[in-house]
Parts: sequence; C-alpha cells; structure tokens
Amino acid sequence: MMNPMTEALAQDLATRLPAAAIREVEPRYLEEPRGQWAGQAACVVAPATAEEVAEVIRFAGAHGVPVVPYGGGTGLVGGQVSPDGAAPILLSLERMSAIRAVHPREAVLVAGAGAILADVQAAAEEAALLFPLSLASEGSARIGGLLATNAGGVNVLRYGNARELCLGLEAVLPDGSIWHGLRRLRKDNTGYDLRHLLIGAEGTLGVITAASLRLFPRPERRAAAFMVVRDPGAALDLLAMARRRLGEGVSAFELISGMGLEFLRETERPVRRPFDPSPDWLVLVELGLPAALDSEAALEELFAEALEAELVDDGLIAQSEQQRAEFWAVRETIPEANKHVGAIASHDISLPLSAIPDFIARADAALAKLGDFRINCFGHLGDGNLHYNVFPAHGRSKTEYGEARREVSALVHDMVHEMEGSFSAEHGIGRLKVGELERYGDPAKLAAMRAIKAALDPSGIMNPGAVLRAPE
Amino acid sequence: MMNPMTEALAQDLATRLPAAAIREVEPRYLEEPRGQWAGQAACVVAPATAEEVAEVIRFAGAHGVPVVPYGGGTGLVGGQVSPDGAAPILLSLERMSAIRAVHPREAVLVAGAGAILADVQAAAEEAALLFPLSLASEGSARIGGLLATNAGGVNVLRYGNARELCLGLEAVLPDGSIWHGLRRLRKDNTGYDLRHLLIGAEGTLGVITAASLRLFPRPERRAAAFMVVRDPGAALDLLAMARRRLGEGVSAFELISGMGLEFLRETERPVRRPFDPSPDWLVLVELGLPAALDSEAALEELFAEALEAELVDDGLIAQSEQQRAEFWAVRETIPEANKHVGAIASHDISLPLSAIPDFIARADAALAKLGDFRINCFGHLGDGNLHYNVFPAHGRSKTEYGEARREVSALVHDMVHEMEGSFSAEHGIGRLKVGELERYGDPAKLAAMRAIKAALDPSGIMNPGAVLRAPE
Repeated sequence: MMNPMTEALAQDLATRLPAAAIREVEPRYLEEPRGQWAGQAACVVAPATAEEVAEVIRFAGAHGVPVVPYGGGTGLVGGQVSPDGAAPILLSLERMSAIRAVHPREAVLVAGAGAILADVQAAAEEAALLFPLSLASEGSARIGGLLATNAGGVNVLRYGNARELCLGLEAVLPDGSIWHGLRRLRKDNTGYDLRHLLIGAEGTLGVITAASLRLFPRPERRAAAFMVVRDPGAALDLLAMARRRLGEGVSAFELISGMGLEFLRETERPVRRPFDPSPDWLVLVELGLPAALDSEAALEELFAEALEAELVDDGLIAQSEQQRAEFWAVRETIPEANKHVGAIASHDISLPLSAIPDFIARADAALAKLGDFRINCFGHLGDGNLHYNVFPAHGRSKTEYGEARREVSALVHDMVHEMEGSFSAEHGIGRLKVGELERYGDPAKLAAMRAIKAALDPSGIMNPGAVLRAPE
Repeated sequence: MMNPMTEALAQDLATRLPAAAIREVEPRYLEEPRGQWAGQAACVVAPATAEEVAEVIRFAGAHGVPVVPYGGGTGLVGGQVSPDGAAPILLSLERMSAIRAVHPREAVLVAGAGAILADVQAAAEEAALLFPLSLASEGSARIGGLLATNAGGVNVLRYGNARELCLGLEAVLPDGSIWHGLRRLRKDNTGYDLRHLLIGAEGTLGVITAASLRLFPRPERRAAAFMVVRDPGAALDLLAMARRRLGEGVSAFELISGMGLEFLRETERPVRRPFDPSPDWLVLVELGLPAALDSEAALEELFAEALEAELVDDGLIAQSEQQRAEFWAVRETIPEANKHVGAIASHDISLPLSAIPDFIARADAALAKLGDFRINCFGHLGDGNLHYNVFPAHGRSKTEYGEARREVSALVHDMVHEMEGSFSAEHGIGRLKVGELERYGDPAKLAAMRAIKAALDPSGIMNPGAVLRAPE
C-alpha cells in the first residue's frame, strides 16, 4: 500500500526544489486524449535537471508516495494518469526540454526528456539530417514519453521504433540514483542493457531525463504512389518486391481499405479520393532514395513489374511534391473519418506479416457471424501493424450496439493471440491493457517482469498500476 | 557459495535426460581461443529442447550448482569457461542446431540456439534473402552465443548488432521456467523487453534456446573501393559524404592504417597491397545498392566529390568481383599479420565518432612518451569501433616489454573512458573484463545490474563470475 501525497508533504517537497519547479495542479495534467480516465495528483513538480528529479524520487521513496512521470500527455493507454489509489506526485518533464547538443559528424543528437518531438526533428533538419520518428502527436509528445512507451509511427519500416533510435539514456532509478548512460556509441557491450529495459517500461522502472538519439541522412529523392492491389496477400508480395528492388529505400508501406475511402466520402472529408469507384484494397508506397536515383522512375518500374505479376491492376504516381502531400492526406484523414463514423471497437494489433491475409479473412468472417458491422482495416502493413477497427452498419449508430465492444475486442484479441500476434503493437500497456497483458502475456515473462519491478522499485513508487497491476 | 557438480549428481542428472544429451567432458569444451584460461566442468550436457534445458536448470537450482552455457566456444573474453570456483555443469547448445523455419514472405528465420551462423546465412540465401551478421568465426559461432554476447562484425554500420537482428527469443530462465517469446513481430509493446535484457547478458540471466531473426533483401549491386584519406578526420567526413549521397547503401566503412599495410609486407602475407609506398591512412568502402543503381559509378562520383573537397588524394575502385575480394583480403589479413608481429596489448574500443581523430592523436602521443611502440589502429570506423593495438618497435620483441601490457591498457582504457567511449565495443565482458566494468561502469547501472541478477537468479547458478563478480 502506498501513502498518498498530502498538502504537508507537498510543502516539504517544495522546500527542496527551486520555486520554478513547483507547478499548479492544472486540469491538463489530469486529462488524457481518450477521455476515459480522470487523473488525480496532490502536486505537480517540473524539475529542470536529473538531480532535481532524483530529489523528488528520493523524497517519494522516503515517504512511500507514488510518482507518475508526465511527458506530453499524448499516450493513448492511460500510462500518464492516476485515476485511483493514493494521490501521487505528478512529475512533469516540461522543463527538461532543451536540445542539449547536436553532433552532425556523429549523426547524434542529445535531448532532454522534455524536448518536443517536432523540435528534435527541426534541430536534426538544421544539421541537414533526419530524426525519423514521426507520428500524429509530434507537436506535443516529448522524447521521454516517446521512449518510455517505445513509440512507433509511420517510419518504423525503415528506421525502427523509438527504441532503435536511442543510443543512450540519462535516467533516475527508483532508488533516486542517477544513471549517467548518455552514450553516443554504436557498439558498447558492457553489461546488461538497462537502456532497453527502461525503454518501453512506461515510467515504472525510473524516469528518463535525457537521451542521445540517432540521426540519419535525409533521403534526397522522395516519391509516393497509390497502387491498387488484388488483396492483402498481393500487398505483401508487392512489399517484398519493392524491398527486393529498392532495399531500405522503401520508407513507408501503408495499407488502405475501400471502406476507408468510403468513410472519407461518407463523412465528406475534404480530400481528393484517388479512385472512383473505390477499390477493395490499395497501398500507399513511399520511397526515399539517394539523389543518384530517379524515384519516380523507380516507382514506375516497380509498378510495371507488379502489373506483370498480376499483383496490382491500377496505380497513381505522385507527379509533384504537392500531389505527394495529397496522397498522404488521404491516408492521414482516415482516422478523422473514423471518428466521425464512430467506432464500436478499435484495435492496435500486430501480426507476423505472412499471417495478415488469413487474419483479415478469418476476423471478417467471425465478425460477420457476430453482427452487422463494417470494418475499416488499415495501417502500417510493412510493420505488420494493423488498425483493425469495427464500425456500425451503414445508417446505424454505435449506441445501438450496446455492449458489443467487449465481445468484439475479445474476439479480435483472442484471434490475434492465437495467430502469434500482439494486442498492443505501438501504444503500450498503460492502465488500459493491464488485463490483456495478464491474459495473453507469457507467464514466465510476467514473473520475470514482476521480479525486476520488485528488485528495482521495492517500494513500488514508480507509476504504480501502469503495465503491472499494483499490489493490493 | 555454489556447490560443485559431483560425479553422483552427474549420474542423477543423467537419469533425467535422454542418453544422447550426455556428453564426454572433452578438452574442446574447456578451452578458449586466446588460451588464457583452462576451464573445468564436472559434466557436459547437450539438451535438444527447451524442456530438456529447463530440466537441467531446475536440477542445478535444486542443488545449487553452477551452469555454464556453451555455444560455439569462440568468445574472446572467457564467458564460456569456468576456470575456478565450484565445478559447473557445462550446457552445450550443439544439439539445438536446427533452422526451425524460414518465412520468406516475412523475411524472418527461426533458428535453434545451436544453429551455426554460416548455416543461418546459407538458409537465408536459399530464400534469396540476407542474414547480415558476419564475423570471422561464423563457421563455428552459434546463434545462442552470438545473441548472448550481442556480437558485432563488419555489417553493423548498415544492419546493427546481433541485438538489432533479433525479433524474439525462446529461453529458459534461472528458475527453470521457459519463456516462449519467439515473436516474429516488428512492433510489440507489451511489457518489459526481456529479449534485450537476455541479449548481451552472456548467459548470466538464462539460456537462450531459440531465436527469430530478421532477414533483409540482398543488395544486388556490390562494389568496393580503397580511398587514401588525409587523416582519420577526413575519413569521418568521407563517411558523412558517402552516407549523404548513398544513405543505407554504405554497407561497410573500414579504417586501415599505413602500419597495417606495413605489417602485411613485413610478415610477407600473400595479399596484394594496394599502394606503394603505403599511405598513412586509407579506408575500404563497400556499397550494396539496388539493381537500378550503378555502384561503380556511384563510387566514382563519391571519389570525385571527395577529391574536390580535398578529403582523399588517391583511390582504387574494384573492377571485378575478384578484385573486390582482393580488397577485402587486405582488410581481413591484417589481424593475421598482427599475430605474427605479436601485440603487446590489444583493445576493442569504441568512441563517439567525432572523438576519434582526437583520441588517435592523444593516445599515440601518450604512448610515445611511455615507450618505443608501434601502433596499428584499424577497425569498423563507421561504428566508432577501433582495434587500437600496440606492438613492439621494429626489430624488437614483445618479451622485451615486460609488464608494459598492463600500463598500456590502463592508459588506453582511461583515455577512452574520459572521452566517453567504451572499453568493450563488441566482445563483451566475460571473465576478462569484469575488473574494467567495475572500474569504468556507472555505479547506478552496476547496482541495477546486481539487483536484476539477484532477482532473476537468486541462487546465482547462471554462469557465475561472468559479467558480474561472483559473490565470495
């Protein structure tokens, strides 16, 4: 059992920190994007250095009160809110937002955990380099949170998840010690990889205070195309063909369903739909190639080979930077259209690539037996990451479907599990999926996770209730 | 204190395993490539399945006897030998050598931990794909050991270390439980990353029994060139230029010193030296490009730009596959020449890329003050990984240098540490570098490592004395 943070303790803590570190408990700290939980916090502190973070953590440890680390607040699984239990200290990263250094010759950037993703991208661009992590919330998500949740996004196919982009960390561990691990090395085999343990631990094993991040050359020639594919299996074959021809030059490979295009029409989104009538399936392929390669020509040759192999039967290659942006607008407006239609249940799942066609067929069939649904299945096909979202039939509303959400999600997640997939591809566990982790997680892994948590955070102060259920 | 494995216990264990799992204690299990230690073992077992491994581990746990996992035996830091303390069970992976599955559509291969690297490479090639891990001992190193030590090699620049090539693991944890984590997913954010914790733990946190591995498209156009650079700083600028022009197409970027070429001449190695007289510094650049790109032309253009920028002043582009092989033979024969000359001290170090020119200058100067040495500095410059090896002056032998090794290594490692580098870039800690880890390791990280070890392996049976000093 944790102790709640009290007013008296908050006053005590305030004497140990600079005045600027003490924040008002504003509503924005207690909300999360899905509006599913209302958080609580007895105080909000915003330390500016790892030493100040350590002061807070040691204080929390001494008094047995919980600490909830808070980045940009954009997480979708409630890892950043504390809806119940003892009132915590909310520890905001916002004052550790500096880009500490850019090393162009190393292609490395060192940022405080509070640095906003868009600012990191901009700092990389100023050095004529690329920080490839890119996702919808990049204007407010902070590096510490992005690493704590191992964020994904649209460039994972080529550059990996947040995890793969991190060379080193500075972090405060649950005992209040500071790990000075801001290495900028590509190779460093000196003991257990604490970096990868903290990445993805969602603030339950410590607080990331800074990170050294990998930068990449900016691909000079970008090009995009829509290609109409026969079915998801043909899309996979097209992906393999594209990678065989162009290697790492394939930057993104997104699956879009006819239903997604239909939703754009139905909800009157102001984007130019690429085909009319809508095909059943299409992919958006993006290339990023060296200057020496003509990327439009490369797309044309890929299309010609795919046509020959009967994988595709129609296509559009963007003829200008503006048209490329229009193509992406189609892809990026689908979630907005989904919101207007109103999903019964959404799923952030991943599957072994070769299982995807079978999964889609089986899940569609099982749901058709369960009720009258429409399915918009789309996502980062190159990563095996699907957003398999279930909607009411045309003309009906999700309120008519009562408690179907639970049944639909159980069906989808059971099938994903059976087919060796994951019920959380990129969003993490947070507080939303603790039950799913208990249900689907490997028992040996769960036991090891609990042992590690108990070893590093014996008093359980770090973000209790996230990832692992807090002890009663 | 561990109990030694005894003859009686060995007989008991033998009754719990199939007869084929019981091996003779042959000398090959007790030797290591550097001949620095003689190992001991009371028995050798070679289980064929994770379940049999679990049986061994549970037995060891019940009796408090140590277990030393044994892959190909090629490790260079003694992680696979037990020279002192209680006699262990040596657990060989050799009977788990099957390639369990190849999934061409997913670009994934699943191998038992005993699979030999060259066999994995061949299985990938049969599927027209590439498993890019490549190093000198690939004919005998086994996947389990390669992952347990997070092996590196020549393709890390483009494809990453062993760690980055692994999607999932099956492993037996120190309590004898089996973690069924053979995921084939690119995205899976479901709790702490046990995979990355076991990778690089050198068998001290469990036994890897199988792995799912990433495969890649095979670059269709390969080309290589030697380029003579002004100095290591110019080599770094050339690397940045090459990556700006060709992105991930730069597969390898190796630094070679004039001393390396000189050693080839001096020891009469049968390779064609590329320049005469030997320049001070050169690099070997390898490209692997899509079929649509002319890789020789790309190298010519790179050379022309580098000449213009005064980074290079001479160069040779391989004109045939045979010549490309000859170029690589120069690079790969340098370690052999080194052996013939006889090093006083060798160092497998890494540095932030931009620190490399300064490090080389400072270390050379400091060693010149210390004594009359010759230095052959070469290695994977693209990874910041140098083999900074120190030799006797011409005409002298290392025996004349008495105890200089210790002093030289302390000087080099102290300087590497001060410049934020690593004293073990790719070989790991094993038993050789436990003292260095204690000396240079971050105290908070070391404490966390010890806590994790105690939590997962409370009786300390897994490879005691490797990575972390065994309790007295």
